[in-house]
Amino acid sequence: MTQSARPRGVFSPVLTPFTDGYAPDARRFVRHCRWLIEQGVGLAVFGTNSEANSLSLDEKRGLLDRLLDAGIPPDRLMPGTGACALPDAIALTRHAVTAGCAGVLMLPPFYYKGVSDDGLFRAFAEVIEAVGEAVGDARLRVYLYHIPAVSQVPLGLDLIDRLLTAYPGIVAGIKDSSGDLANTRAMIERFGARGFDVFAGTEAILLETMRAGGAGCITATGNVNPAPIVDLYANWQAADADARQAALNRTRAAFQQFPMIAAMKEAIAVQSADGGWRTVRPPLTELQEGQRALLGQALDALGFAMPGAERLAA
Amino acid sequence: MTQSARPRGVFSPVLTPFTDGYAPDARRFVRHCRWLIEQGVGLAVFGTNSEANSLSLDEKRGLLDRLLDAGIPPDRLMPGTGACALPDAIALTRHAVTAGCAGVLMLPPFYYKGVSDDGLFRAFAEVIEAVGEAVGDARLRVYLYHIPAVSQVPLGLDLIDRLLTAYPGIVAGIKDSSGDLANTRAMIERFGARGFDVFAGTEAILLETMRAGGAGCITATGNVNPAPIVDLYANWQAADADARQAALNRTRAAFQQFPMIAAMKEAIAVQSADGGWRTVRPPLTELQEGQRALLGQALDALGFAMPGAERLAA
Repeated sequence: MTQSARPRGVFSPVLTPFTDGYAPDARRFVRHCRWLIEQGVGLAVFGTNSEANSLSLDEKRGLLDRLLDAGIPPDRLMPGTGACALPDAIALTRHAVTAGCAGVLMLPPFYYKGVSDDGLFRAFAEVIEAVGEAVGDARLRVYLYHIPAVSQVPLGLDLIDRLLTAYPGIVAGIKDSSGDLANTRAMIERFGARGFDVFAGTEAILLETMRAGGAGCITATGNVNPAPIVDLYANWQAADADARQAALNRTRAAFQQFPMIAAMKEAIAVQSADGGWRTVRPPLTELQEGQRALLGQALDALGFAMPGAERLAA
Repeated sequence: MTQSARPRGVFSPVLTPFTDGYAPDARRFVRHCRWLIEQGVGLAVFGTNSEANSLSLDEKRGLLDRLLDAGIPPDRLMPGTGACALPDAIALTRHAVTAGCAGVLMLPPFYYKGVSDDGLFRAFAEVIEAVGEAVGDARLRVYLYHIPAVSQVPLGLDLIDRLLTAYPGIVAGIKDSSGDLANTRAMIERFGARGFDVFAGTEAILLETMRAGGAGCITATGNVNPAPIVDLYANWQAADADARQAALNRTRAAFQQFPMIAAMKEAIAVQSADGGWRTVRPPLTELQEGQRALLGQALDALGFAMPGAERLAA
């Protein structure tokens, strides 16, 4: 099998719905993924906003298989496969690559803090070597995942340089969730010419990222506001691009007043008329009643709607 | 099966040896555990210093089974069973309780930061309810694990109060690795009378913890300096207790100049004449040559020795 086209554009860390008993709900998950694909959004399943680190390895493998069984095209999938434990990262990466996913998005091991670049290099290298040996390098495309505020394990430019030098073609890019446009730009400038695609970690800097030569964005709000974000990606050189960006930012700001995962699930629950969408797995919690009302008011004021959301209901 | 006696005294997060290929080395692990038991140290396997979060669930279950098969008494075991994903925490806790372990040491889910007490309560409660339902509450004894510098998810006094109120007899104590004696004392004062045992997270405050009414300590350096730490625990009311504490602190300080896990493995490698002990799993790294020499000099100056360490060799 040869590699699919390099992923570009807008991806979303797909929200993971749960049943009342906190089990992953594959039925709602497949429906949501289908809907996102139709809106032009790629599926970075098992990201931070997917509560992926609250899922077991078996649960993640099971959900990925359900997507493939449902006919979701693997070349639109970029599953998160990083983990604290090397065997877990290797197992899920291998599973994703074997399934033909366009790429994998890889957190560093995130329990130990203050670890050295040597240790982080070795952690990524072990996964790449093990999966490459098992399934062949040609199908392996790793996107690094830099999200220091959550992982507390930053991926610096020197580390990226080392990985890119050791594994050209395999280390294919990064999701930069630093929230720091200067960092995103620095990555593009330093590595962009070496086949390294930089995705902004939020659509709030999508336009600036595209102007700087980036590949798109992988963004939480892609779950709820997909079409307008894809629209800006497709038209970032249009005359009204700044106005489109400003509109995206207003919608994002409405969600960002609250914990994002719970807020997005709340919006889907309302739009799909399916309250089961509200469930988050501990240690997260649903929005409280007052927060729900405030979010609803903010979204109503923006005329927010998710066309076709009724199909997301269980 | 009834509960074993409540664990007290000195426990150590047992170092996990690895083969050259980074696989857990059950043979060295069993030998090290036997040696620790002979020195009077209980086995908090799968702690931070065990690189436990670099191990998969299956690896942890396998290592625990190997200890039990080797005749290690389960009432000397307090495995770490906390995890980011609820199903993992439930599975390993259930495995440990079924095996008759004296208790389990439970990290909170540690990927998401800034989570609410409601969410953390729910996370612990879900594990307790699930395991209690499966194996019976009477055998379940949970020790909370507060290590904010690493987990970045602190366990505050109000949360502990809630858990202790909801699950008296099950929520049995805490390992306080805050490094803050005032916090350790506050826990003892507020919860000590309610059947809640407070273990210091380092022997550096063992004497003060015992004077305040604590239950002992769970400490990394128990891996390499077990007998003197147990000695202070047994003799904390002796006239020379302060001198014993000072001696412990000198040995600890020699290790603490370096990353602790790598430094302790280095010391065991030297003392057991088995260089294989040096291996750590990524993202950690072994001590560099210069560090090895400096550690050796510091330990020689203290007359450091691990009697019987030759039995730890593979």
